[in-house]
Formats: sequence, structure tokens, C-alpha cells
Amino acid sequence: MTISVFDHPILSGLLGDEELAHLFSARAELDAMLKFEAALAEAEADEGVIPRPAAEKITATLARFSPDVAGLKAGVAQDGVVVPALVRELRAALPEDVRAHLHFGATSQDVIDTGFALRAREATAILARRLAGLIDALATLETRDGQTKVMAHTRMQAAIPVSASRKIRSWREPLIRDVRRLEAVQGDIAVLHFGGAAGTLDKLGHKGETVAGRLAARLGLAQPDHARHSERDGIAAFASVLSLISGSLGKMGQDIVLAAQSEIGEIELAAGGGSSAMPHKKNPVAAEALVTLARFNATLVGGVHQALVHENERSGAAWTLEWMLLPQMVVATGAALLKASELVDGLAFKARSV
Amino acid sequence: MTISVFDHPILSGLLGDEELAHLFSARAELDAMLKFEAALAEAEADEGVIPRPAAEKITATLARFSPDVAGLKAGVAQDGVVVPALVRELRAALPEDVRAHLHFGATSQDVIDTGFALRAREATAILARRLAGLIDALATLETRDGQTKVMAHTRMQAAIPVSASRKIRSWREPLIRDVRRLEAVQGDIAVLHFGGAAGTLDKLGHKGETVAGRLAARLGLAQPDHARHSERDGIAAFASVLSLISGSLGKMGQDIVLAAQSEIGEIELAAGGGSSAMPHKKNPVAAEALVTLARFNATLVGGVHQALVHENERSGAAWTLEWMLLPQMVVATGAALLKASELVDGLAFKARSV
Amino acid sequence: MTISVFDHPILSGLLGDEELAHLFSARAELDAMLKFEAALAEAEADEGVIPRPAAEKITATLARFSPDVAGLKAGVAQDGVVVPALVRELRAALPEDVRAHLHFGATSQDVIDTGFALRAREATAILARRLAGLIDALATLETRDGQTKVMAHTRMQAAIPVSASRKIRSWREPLIRDVRRLEAVQGDIAVLHFGGAAGTLDKLGHKGETVAGRLAARLGLAQPDHARHSERDGIAAFASVLSLISGSLGKMGQDIVLAAQSEIGEIELAAGGGSSAMPHKKNPVAAEALVTLARFNATLVGGVHQALVHENERSGAAWTLEWMLLPQMVVATGAALLKASELVDGLAFKARSV
Amino acid sequence: MTISVFDHPILSGLLGDEELAHLFSARAELDAMLKFEAALAEAEADEGVIPRPAAEKITATLARFSPDVAGLKAGVAQDGVVVPALVRELRAALPEDVRAHLHFGATSQDVIDTGFALRAREATAILARRLAGLIDALATLETRDGQTKVMAHTRMQAAIPVSASRKIRSWREPLIRDVRRLEAVQGDIAVLHFGGAAGTLDKLGHKGETVAGRLAARLGLAQPDHARHSERDGIAAFASVLSLISGSLGKMGQDIVLAAQSEIGEIELAAGGGSSAMPHKKNPVAAEALVTLARFNATLVGGVHQALVHENERSGAAWTLEWMLLPQMVVATGAALLKASELVDGLAFKARSV
Repeated sequence: MTISVFDHPILSGLLGDEELAHLFSARAELDAMLKFEAALAEAEADEGVIPRPAAEKITATLARFSPDVAGLKAGVAQDGVVVPALVRELRAALPEDVRAHLHFGATSQDVIDTGFALRAREATAILARRLAGLIDALATLETRDGQTKVMAHTRMQAAIPVSASRKIRSWREPLIRDVRRLEAVQGDIAVLHFGGAAGTLDKLGHKGETVAGRLAARLGLAQPDHARHSERDGIAAFASVLSLISGSLGKMGQDIVLAAQSEIGEIELAAGGGSSAMPHKKNPVAAEALVTLARFNATLVGGVHQALVHENERSGAAWTLEWMLLPQMVVATGAALLKASELVDGLAFKARSV
Repeated sequence: MTISVFDHPILSGLLGDEELAHLFSARAELDAMLKFEAALAEAEADEGVIPRPAAEKITATLARFSPDVAGLKAGVAQDGVVVPALVRELRAALPEDVRAHLHFGATSQDVIDTGFALRAREATAILARRLAGLIDALATLETRDGQTKVMAHTRMQAAIPVSASRKIRSWREPLIRDVRRLEAVQGDIAVLHFGGAAGTLDKLGHKGETVAGRLAARLGLAQPDHARHSERDGIAAFASVLSLISGSLGKMGQDIVLAAQSEIGEIELAAGGGSSAMPHKKNPVAAEALVTLARFNATLVGGVHQALVHENERSGAAWTLEWMLLPQMVVATGAALLKASELVDGLAFKARSV
Repeated sequence: MTISVFDHPILSGLLGDEELAHLFSARAELDAMLKFEAALAEAEADEGVIPRPAAEKITATLARFSPDVAGLKAGVAQDGVVVPALVRELRAALPEDVRAHLHFGATSQDVIDTGFALRAREATAILARRLAGLIDALATLETRDGQTKVMAHTRMQAAIPVSASRKIRSWREPLIRDVRRLEAVQGDIAVLHFGGAAGTLDKLGHKGETVAGRLAARLGLAQPDHARHSERDGIAAFASVLSLISGSLGKMGQDIVLAAQSEIGEIELAAGGGSSAMPHKKNPVAAEALVTLARFNATLVGGVHQALVHENERSGAAWTLEWMLLPQMVVATGAALLKASELVDGLAFKARSV
Repeated sequence: MTISVFDHPILSGLLGDEELAHLFSARAELDAMLKFEAALAEAEADEGVIPRPAAEKITATLARFSPDVAGLKAGVAQDGVVVPALVRELRAALPEDVRAHLHFGATSQDVIDTGFALRAREATAILARRLAGLIDALATLETRDGQTKVMAHTRMQAAIPVSASRKIRSWREPLIRDVRRLEAVQGDIAVLHFGGAAGTLDKLGHKGETVAGRLAARLGLAQPDHARHSERDGIAAFASVLSLISGSLGKMGQDIVLAAQSEIGEIELAAGGGSSAMPHKKNPVAAEALVTLARFNATLVGGVHQALVHENERSGAAWTLEWMLLPQMVVATGAALLKASELVDGLAFKARSV
């Protein structure tokens, strides 16, 4: 079943991003959750909260665990979150005396949100790498074509001639700012979520903070003062940066579509789409896709901001809304960066004949 | 890869809808496109536009056609739409003298939009059936629990006691209006899209309208005066109705969540979610999901309205945005109806003790 | 203070609509509320719920009532809705023995929502009249310029030549459908809201329905089976139709902007904007404004759909959100229709020279 | 006329913010534009681009200039932007030989965008001051009430008791992060916009950069490498931060609404709204308003992100959309901070009796 273009066996050819999509597969999600549970057991053994041999049995069992996906699906239908069913399956795979040591002091949100943090951090690294590549490619393009004279257009009317570098810089500079924004938002994203039932780590007594410290260190995440379960500003800040990136690429895409119009022809595209009815056409497909992806993220970003109204210590309704929107926004941003690179690599400015 | 909860092997347990998702699988999409091409060949043979034997060979070939999905994926990456690659594959499967008769006079948008119309019509029938079932279930609930005294709350404060029927009717009446809205929007959706390259059926000469008439009849769709390619109001009207349905269900879900609060307890739920940290809890998971799905559709509906600004005779950018949003909205609406039925079947009003 | 362009002494020149704005002035709002209270007193006197002389004193007092706006402003800050303060002011202007007969059995939401219904009905009539005028103007344009040959563009590339009537019809037909949608949505909008504290008219005993019937008749509104206080689907359906109208006008605006590009010149505009830096330019200002207004409404419509999640018998949060969005959407739609008429009156298609 | 609640003589009592609204009055807008033109004349005189006496006459004339508002309104209707008409009026007030020295080398967007930058910087300072005050107030509240035992709720069900400080911190910490975000976004906002017709300062020859430097210094704004006319990422980043602030306040508001429910009563509010039908009620009006304002900004932020697709060197359509959304977002954020402070000052946690 393929409701989303990103999961679609055909349309993902146009709008997909295999590398990022991999991070949001069910497999990668489960792996991240298992990583959390293993690191938690070890951190708790480090602090003497659970016996060392229990932690060893837990990590060994998790390493070879194969989930019953149908069981997890039924579990999420019942519980609204996969963790209770996953913990049940994991405990069933453990010796009886070890079972209570698994997931000790943790709650579902710790597992899900930290699991997302681990993958969002990887996603951010991929986006940053692609941004850097695109910024370089635009510099190269400017070096090659920057002196070409093209027409500036304001309010969709020819204004005065400018050099192509004017256009290229207006595409490139926002991306340089986005690199900084992506770095800044890491502090919002690459953060441990560990608070237990109500965010107070009550089952760990006075050892809550030290266990959290060890857990954060093992996972390579920052340890905040307290669990941020119900504080979703980091997530919404992340979504905002994603939409800033795809939005600036959408502006570049729109400019390219306009400059490549048959009647203007100031940009020539190496690759263009064919038509089933008009074989003579060369459609600016990748550039249009940038506009689409920009408007898609601009649509979804509002939903993530709605989810800031996260009631009480944990909101089923607002939290689930994030799950529906965020992976799509990450992949849309990644896909936009892929399309943009492809596009820049294949475009040439042409001086207007008149 | 599973970016969308609707495609997700686990999360679809909470938010999915297998019946509707089936309509938006790549398989169902291709089938609908092949249905269009077959019906087109027959309609054109009826009018003497192509030879009858050519139409017969086309329908026979389409009936046993098995697509090269990888080829289609590469095609959509190139062309922005799958149809050129699909037509190439189909033509390659036909005898050489028949090839030009396939897809004659049609364009990609005819195939995609009519293919969507065929499936949207089916989806609408499913939604209407579920709405009717839910309306009945609420009537049954009112018969059983309507006289129970519960507290009305205005501005989140206890107001005065009312009978439960007050609440049940405020959930049910909007759904009755939605049935009418869904019927009315059929005229926007169950419509043939057939215009050729620029919407004027220029290749069919004076036979354009009669071929369109026969094609519409064969597909059971309405025949509009002219091809509506660039007129997306029907699509946005459909999306609006979907969000009206899920929004009214979200209101019901929110009411149930509030009435089922531990401190209020005026609604008891048969099924409730468990917590990995607090086994004593019974979470109103399905009711929360209704709120989530309402806010999801309320987010996406704005994007479909943005796509009304569909430039010229066919906009790659705006059209593709619809593909990203509409199937998700249909399935979210369907999933909300499923959840709502489940919820209503398992809930009971309880008189407040005080 | 002028936060909104619609209220702005300068920018309303570009984006305003005096006729519609008048309906959403504080004065018109108060007048509609007073109309409700007067009609309520009369309806209750008709049914013997309050004494006839009391109703006469009420209507006489309301007719010459001049509100203390500062008092109402302080009241809304305190109560979240102006009605309690307004009723206090009105009662203070009445003889003591009549005071309790004013607003008898009603609640704030009855007054506000019915007051909005009265004005939305007027707004709808204005929009319908303008739509009809624009549809006619487009027919006239087609008669005059429809045979002009222009280029069709698909995916922003020249496709094949078509007659201008192809374009004009694609602008006109959605508006014809919008007329029907506007008629249909009247049933959602032109409705009495009268339910008392919790929507059950409990203070009126067995006379609730007959008083409501008389009240509806006096106000020229439909009387629903029961008060729809917490059922906001009619409001969201109305907002959706508004955005459908402005969206289809945005598509027309976008097409005109594109055809009027210096390099294309297939549309000539009578009026165009000047530039402070480039006196030679003639900017397609009105056409751009149509795109802006379309995207504005497409943004706001999602917020109105969010407000469908209206908790319990009356939601302060969701209801207030409607007040922030709906008047703007109505005026944006009206402004778009004004701009569109102006634009169509001053545009001419030009055959392309090549 | 009062389409927007922020401009409304009555509703601004609930949702308004006089201090911020003042910054977005037409008067403040014109003042900022005049400030730009005066500083420009002086900067150009500094660099010998225009004669010093001309600059002196310009600054003297601007200091006593009184605009013809009706003329400006007609101008914006014609040109889509007020600057051409404003420059005409200003030039008419100057001696003939000075006229050409006014606005020399500048374009409308320089004036409007720099004028907005000047006011956005002031707005940001006001927001930062209020944030700091609210953060302090929450610290004071924690000191006083932090040890009170209240119930944690997850998924809208009672979970385990926690101290009130758990809740207070979850409201306060996002605001501390928002202070940092507001500081970071200053670099995006407090920036000179000065590029002339097509962003290249072509009329200033080799003096473009030095004039820009002097102009930026006179206005206290940063001087970017080049004019950012068509790069709207700074604007969208600003809008995102505004919505993050109002969203986190909306979460606080929602929590307060829930804890203040009649049946829960863990928060007592000093001030509450009355009802016209139920005098016994005390409605959590300010807390509800926080939810409303959060959802309002979450709606509008998506529109500002749509405007990132700003075509070519200056987009009439996308730029105007910002004017419709941004002032409202700033004032909504400011109003939310005012409401939140009022709310925190008047609330007390109460231990639950059970």
C-alpha cells in the first residue's frame, strides 16, 4: 500500500529519497528503539540500578531480537504507541528474572522520542552534507556562468539586465544561512528524552540524573536539565528549518521554471521531461518538483506548529500528529536537495539574444 | 520504506485503513489507467477514429499487461508523470501497426485525472457507507444512553446538567449533513477528464465531443462541457468535504477524551490503551486518534487549496502537490470513520455520581 | 491601529473591500446583536414567555441604544465575549422590572452566532452578485476576444496554439460552479443559533421550539432541529467555499500574470502599476493581488478547519479562532472579486506575432 | 472598519496589544519609510553621490511632511506598493532641483523592507522584554507553589502525582529557548534592504557598497553582502520563531484550562470570565485565548512559508502575502505574552483534596 508518494514504488522516482527514507523505515525505527533499551540497561548497570548480568542478557537478547510485526501492529492499535507491545515481546524473549530489568524506569515516550532523536541527528547530517554540496555546485555555476547577462524581472515584468551571478547568489545565500540554522537546531533535536511515567524519573530515586547522564553519553545525545516530553518547541523548530530549506529551493525552482520558459530561454536544462501528447516538449520537471516540495513542507509545517499545543504531561493527540508529519517533511527536504543538485548540475544560463 | 503512517507496517494498525489504502496502491492506480486506455480505444473504435481490430488488440494486450515498475519509476523521474513511460511500455507490447492507435488524442493528464476520478468515486462510496453506519450507531447509542444525565461544559467549565442525547446529537447531525455534502461533491469528482494536449481534443477534430461522450459512458463518469484539466475546484471541494468529515469526528473524539477523563468519568470506554510505565491506565487511544486525524486533514486541506493556483493549461507544480496530499486525506478520513465506529460501539455514558 | 491590510487606511486601497468590510465593522456587529435581542423579546412576547409591554420597552430601548464601547472592550477582556457586558449595558438602560425579560433564555453564543449568520447571509448575497457580474464579463470577453489565437502552456512550456476562449472558459466555469456552492452553503449559514446555556433552551421549558420558530421567522433565518452551537461544520463549509472562489480567481490572476509577461505579451492590461525605480514598467498589480488573496485564503481555511475540533458544548478557544479568521476570509474573497472584475474589464488578448 | 480582531475597538480588549499594534499603524509605517529616505539622502551626501544641501533640504522637508493619505491609498491601488505615490508626494514638496536627489538609486522594496526591519527590530525588543518578565514570573510561581502536589496526566488520564514545579518548568524552559531564538533571528531581521531596481544598486556605480554601509550605520541595521530582496528566508525564520513562542504559550494555556476544570480544580484563577446565561461560572478566558493565539499563528506561519517561493527579483504576489500575515503574527505573539503574564500573575496551584 502506498498512500504517500515517498513510499510509492513509482512516484518515489520523482519525489523520493532512498537514503533518508531508510532512516524512517519501520526497521530503522525499531533498531533505534532497541538501541535505546540496550543503552538504558547498560547505563542502569553502570549505576547499580540493575545487576550487570541482567544488562548483559538484555543487550545480548536485543542484538538478536526479531520482532513479531503483526503483534506490534495490533499493539499500536490498542495502546496508541508501539512500546508496550514491543516491551512485552522483548520481555518474553528474556529469562524470567531479567524481565523486570528491561525498560526499567522508562516510559513509551522516552523510547519513541529518543529513537526519533537518533534518526533526526543522522538525517540532519545527511541534509547538511547535501546543502554543502549544493552550495559548492552553485559557486561553480557562478564561476562558469555568472557573467552571462540575463534580464531581471520584478513583478513578473522585465526590469533591467543583470549578470546571472545576481540570480545565483540569491539562490545560494539562503542555503548558507540554512547550514547555520541546521547546526543551531541540532541542540533542539539531538537530545535525550528520558523521564519515565510523568517526566520525573520517579522510579530511579536519586539516581535519575546520573543514569540519564550515562544514557545520554552512550547514545551521543545531549542531556537536558529535565525530560522535555511535553515541550515540543525543538520539534517545531526543526520542522521550521526543514521548510526554510525546501522553501528557498522552491524559490530557485520557480526562478528556473520561469527562465526556462520557451519564450524566455535564459536557462537551458540538460534534462527535461517528455510529454505523452507533445514529443517536442522539454519540461522543467525537476524545477517544478522543487516548487511542489516547498509548498508541501509549507503546508505541513503549520501542522507541526499546531502540535505545540501538547496538553499536560503527554498528549496522545498532538504527539501522534507529529508522527504523521515529520518524517514526510524530512524526506521532502532531502528529496528537494537531491533534485536541486541534479538541476544545478544540468543547467546553463544563456545570454538573451535581444 | 514507510514514511507515511498509512503505509507503515506497524503504525497503520493505529491510523490505517486497508480498504481505502488499496484504492491508492500503485497497482490500483495502474489498473485505473489501463481501464482508461482500454475504454478510450473502444470509444474511438465506436466512432471510427481508430480501427475496431486495433481497439480489440489494445484491450486484449492491456488485459494481460504486466508493467516494468522500475521502468515506470525511471520514467516518472524523467517526465514528472508516469504516463509517457507507461504508454511506451504498452506500445512496445502491441503490434507495430496498432501502436499509434493507443492513447490516441489523449494526454497524460487525461489518464491520471480520470484514473483518480474512478478511484475517488469508489472511495466516496466507501466513505458514504461508513458514514451511514456510524449515523445508525449513534442513533442506537442515543436510544440506549440518551437519557443519562451528564454535565454540559462550556468554555471547559461545568455548566448545567443535560441529557447525553444533547451530546450524541451534536456528533451525529454534522455527519448527516456530510452525507449530503459527499453526494453533492460527486458531481465534482466523478467526472471524465479528456482534453488532449491542451484541453481542446484537437487531434480528434469534430469527433472530440462524441468520443468523450462514449468514453464517459463506458467509464460511468459524467461528461463535462469541456476538459477541466486546469480547473481544480472540484478537487479542492472534495478535499474540503473530507476535512469536514474528519473535523466533525475530531470534535466527537475530543468530547469523548474529555468526558473519559479520570476525574470526570462520564464516558466509559470498552477498549483503552495500556502504558509501558503505568499498567493501571486505560487510555482513550481511539478518541485521541480522531483528534489527530482531524488536525492532520485540517493541515493538508490548506495545501490542496494552494494548488488551486494551477497555472496555464497544466501546472506540473500544482498538480503534483495534489498527488502528495489527496490520497493521504482520503485515507485519513476513512481511518477516522473506522476509529469512530469502533469507539461508538464500545462506549457507554455514565451518570455522574454527584 | 491597522494590523490588517483590510483595515489599513492605505493598503486597503489595494486589498480592501469597503462594502463587505462594512458588514464586519464593530457597528454592524452590534447592530446585528441588538436585532437578535429585539427579535427575541418579540418572539417571547408572541409566545407569552415575557409580557408584551416588556418586549415593547425592550425594542424601543434597543432602537435608541448607544453602547459604551470602552465598557464593552473591558467586558470582552474579562468574559471572552462581549455579550455579558452588552447585556449589562442594555439592562441598565431598561426600567428595572423589564431587565430580566431581556436576553431571557439566551446565551452569548446565540447572540454572536446569529449575529454572524445575519451578516454572512448579506455577505453571501454580495458575493453572489459579484460572481454573476464577473461571469457575465467573462462571457463578454469571450465574445470579443475568444477567437484570438494564443499559445497553450503546459508545465510552463509552450504547447500548441489554442483560441483564447479555451483560457476564458477555464476561468469562468469554476465560478459558475461556485455560484451553486454559495447557494448550497446558505443552508449552513443562514441559520438561527438559539439554544441557551447548554444548547437545550432549558429556561423556556416546552416553549423552546415555538419561540425559536418565531425568532427564526422574524430574522429570516432557517430554524434547525436543535441549536448547532458546537457543530461548526457549517462555518467550515462556508470558509471552504470562500477559499474555492478566491482560489479559482487566483488561478485566473496567475494566468494573466504569465500571459502579460514582457516576453509573451498575449494579454494587454489597461491599467498597470508603476515602479519607483523603473518608470517604463507596467506591472500586473491586480492580477498579482488575485494570487496573493488566493494564497491568503488557502492559508486561513486550514485554521477554520482546525476550529472544527470544538470541545464540549462551547469552546472558548476554537470559537475565538473563527472570529480571527472568518471576517478576513470573507473580505479577502470580496476583494478578489472586485479586483477580478476590474482586471477583466481592462484586459485584451493579443494574437502572438510569431 | 475592523476586519481584524487586532484593530477591533471591542475585541482588541481580548486579543489586542496596543504597544505592538502601534508599530504597525500606518503612521509608524510611514515614519519608518521617511526615516529610510532621510538616512539615504544623508548617506548619499556623505559619499558625494548627491549634494549636501540637497540632503539637508530633503531631511528638513521629510521632518515636517504630512502625507495625503487618500493619495497614497489611490497610489497603492495603482502600483501595488505605496512608495511610488509617496515619493511623488515627497518630491512635490521639494524644490524642483532637489527632487531627483530624493530616493536616488533606491526602489520600493528598499523602502518597504527596511521600514519593516526597523519596526520588527523594535517589536523583537518588546517581545524579548516580555519573555524575560514572564520567565521571571514563572520562577516566582515555582518558588511559591512548586512543591504543591498535583496529578500528572498522560493521554488525558491521571498518571501519578508530581510536584507543580514539573508543570511550571515545562512551561518555562521553552520560553528560555525562545529568548535565544529571538536573539538569533535578529540577524535575519535587523538588516538593511538596499538594492535599487534589480538588487544591484546599478545607479550608484562603484559607490553602491559604501553608501549602503553608511545607510546601514545610520539606521543601526546590519549590512548584508548584497540586497536580499528576493531571499525571504529571514522573514520566514522570524515568523517561525513567533509561532514557536505563541505555541509554547498555547501549551501553557491548554494545561491551565485543563487543570482549572471544575472537576479537577488544581489551578485556581484570580480572574475568570462571566457568562450571560450562567452567572456562577468563572471561565478561564485568558488561558483559552492562549490556545486560540497559538493556533492562529500556527495557521499563518504556513502562509509565510508559502511566500518563500518568491519568484525572480521581486514577486508582487508573494511579497504582498507577507504584508497580510506578518503584522498579525507579531501582534498575536505580543498579545499572547501579555495574556500569559496576566494569567501567571493571577494563578495558584491547589493540592488535590484526594
